[in-house]
Amino acid sequence: MRRTRLADRDCSIAKSVDAVGDPWTLLVVRDALLGVSRFEDFQRRLGTPRATLSSRLSQLVEIDVLTKDDEGGYHLTDKGRALRPVIVTMMQWGDRWVRDDEPPTRLVEEGTGRSIRPILVDEETRVPLDELRIRAEGAVTDGLPHRTGADEPAL
Amino acid sequence: MRRTRLADRDCSIAKSVDAVGDPWTLLVVRDALLGVSRFEDFQRRLGTPRATLSSRLSQLVEIDVLTKDDEGGYHLTDKGRALRPVIVTMMQWGDRWVRDDEPPTRLVEEGTGRSIRPILVDEETRVPLDELRIRAEGAVTDGLPHRTGADEPAL
Repeated sequence: MRRTRLADRDCSIAKSVDAVGDPWTLLVVRDALLGVSRFEDFQRRLGTPRATLSSRLSQLVEIDVLTKDDEGGYHLTDKGRALRPVIVTMMQWGDRWVRDDEPPTRLVEEGTGRSIRPILVDEETRVPLDELRIRAEGAVTDGLPHRTGADEPAL
Repeated sequence: MRRTRLADRDCSIAKSVDAVGDPWTLLVVRDALLGVSRFEDFQRRLGTPRATLSSRLSQLVEIDVLTKDDEGGYHLTDKGRALRPVIVTMMQWGDRWVRDDEPPTRLVEEGTGRSIRPILVDEETRVPLDELRIRAEGAVTDGLPHRTGADEPAL
């Protein structure tokens, strides 16, 4: 019931978290990006209870994030691979703000071995979002309380 | 119990989804980015059951994503504001893959009114991640099954 109410909202974030805003779901997508495809491999790596994992995999097939092949392997669809930025930004936030030791995962470019540090920029100008003052326009801002001293960027 | 097990894993994504991988939590952070600070405003906008909202706000204060001021208003900390890329990438995914009508939220630059389209790039070269072949290195890749025909980027 809660999840239905979320998806009904006129907000893409609500729809996204409704689809993938479940801890196990995001970890399944992460492992699928890393090349895991078999139930037993997901289960061994994540330690997810089997019934929970089975349910999450079925949901992800149902919403077209994963497809299931004839041998029972799970593979990301285009819609699923498009979740990479969500996974990458979550990893970065966890590295910076949740861990207190060194990040255990490095992203490196194949071939050169160069370290990659992903940041969000405006596509056209390539200016980092952190250096822009950006506001959201649309239904999600309806009925927002009046901002006082809005020195910080709004979304 | 499930959440504790996730946080214990040696993976920043697991730690992040453990902290904020709950639908209501992410929507609270979205609204806080948009300038919402009062309990009644969160409640009215999100329709969250009051007990659930109260619990999520307390959790977010406890993990230092929000602070509570003397008047009972909630404000993002630096750790909380650092979640903006996660919220933005989720919004984009929802816009592209979950909605079938026009996205209801536009991001525009204050002052110029120019539309902003955020993309992830490598900070040093500003090359979009989608154009790079990237692999993950670290504990999260331990015990990964052998990749066959790995033409697609790994994370």
